[in-house]
Amino acid sequence: MGNKIITITRQYGSGGREIGQKLAENLGVDFYDNKLLEIASGDSGIHKSHFEENDEKRSNSFLYLLSTTYGQGGVPFDDTLFFAQLGAIQKIASQQSCVIIGRCADYALRDFEGVVNIFITAPFEVRVKRAIECYGITKKHSEEYVRRIDKQRTSYYNYYTDKRWGMPQNYHLCLDSSALGIDGSVVLLKQFLDDFYK
Amino acid sequence: MGNKIITITRQYGSGGREIGQKLAENLGVDFYDNKLLEIASGDSGIHKSHFEENDEKRSNSFLYLLSTTYGQGGVPFDDTLFFAQLGAIQKIASQQSCVIIGRCADYALRDFEGVVNIFITAPFEVRVKRAIECYGITKKHSEEYVRRIDKQRTSYYNYYTDKRWGMPQNYHLCLDSSALGIDGSVVLLKQFLDDFYK
Repeated sequence: MGNKIITITRQYGSGGREIGQKLAENLGVDFYDNKLLEIASGDSGIHKSHFEENDEKRSNSFLYLLSTTYGQGGVPFDDTLFFAQLGAIQKIASQQSCVIIGRCADYALRDFEGVVNIFITAPFEVRVKRAIECYGITKKHSEEYVRRIDKQRTSYYNYYTDKRWGMPQNYHLCLDSSALGIDGSVVLLKQFLDDFYK
Repeated sequence: MGNKIITITRQYGSGGREIGQKLAENLGVDFYDNKLLEIASGDSGIHKSHFEENDEKRSNSFLYLLSTTYGQGGVPFDDTLFFAQLGAIQKIASQQSCVIIGRCADYALRDFEGVVNIFITAPFEVRVKRAIECYGITKKHSEEYVRRIDKQRTSYYNYYTDKRWGMPQNYHLCLDSSALGIDGSVVLLKQFLDDFYK
């Protein structure tokens, strides 16, 4: 039996990260989110702060493009970051079972065996509420903020991969986290994974 | 506890209909697919054969439009059919628990309580194989046929509803039926529904 690799893509404020964390705990495997950036940073020699600025969004400002350093071969800087993360994801997945959140992980591991791709959604108003209550977003800016993060994730994914973010055919399972709640979602996903990997 | 209404939207050849049938059996509720057309036909006075021609596709041929009969108030004929089906779906759902396949049922029941919307997918090559083996589609035309049916369902749904067919935010759960197989999918969906309705 090879590694069990679970990738979780999620709408902002859907609780996808928390679900991923609890699922990893339940399965007894490592969970990769920010930690991924450290590994990528360690391997590529690019300082961690550069990853954090570019985390899952694509710089589309012309001024930014002018001001960033070009890497080897004239590759725009955030492309270098992307490929560094991609390499880190592939390295981890070849070594161990794990849960990976975002970072186009489903795309990075498209040729790997034993990968389960999950997409977590929730209704817009639920996500706005979560943004306010859990992420400290001010009520006034919450709706606009949620839309903006979704848009960033979508354009990042669509730019770097040959797929379209959030289309159900990319995933084995898509789940509205508000249907069963966070814990109920973890239980259902565990059931799915137990059956898939048996 | 109100009615348990499960709507199943599906990509052609994904086994969504078979999953729905087995799920309905498992839950001890009625299953509506073609039967729906009979009810709609019975209520609206429109002969069943007209429904079957128009089942989940929208006539986009100009010649067809010229040749069809306009109903009351100058509504194009297939719009009359759509609204007749919509009414039939709402009538059934207000009377009993059931599983309903396609027919924009999730849209028809958007204001009803206790509705679970499910979307069934499968990889393209799996669906082509199913079309050949289960639906008698010739190998030569199978790929084109599968694409065409999906396109028909998409444009039918997108035309008549204010949503976009197959977007994960329309559904509580989307499932790739090839991940666990037909029977495994039924087991998982039953688990989801048990938890949702408890």
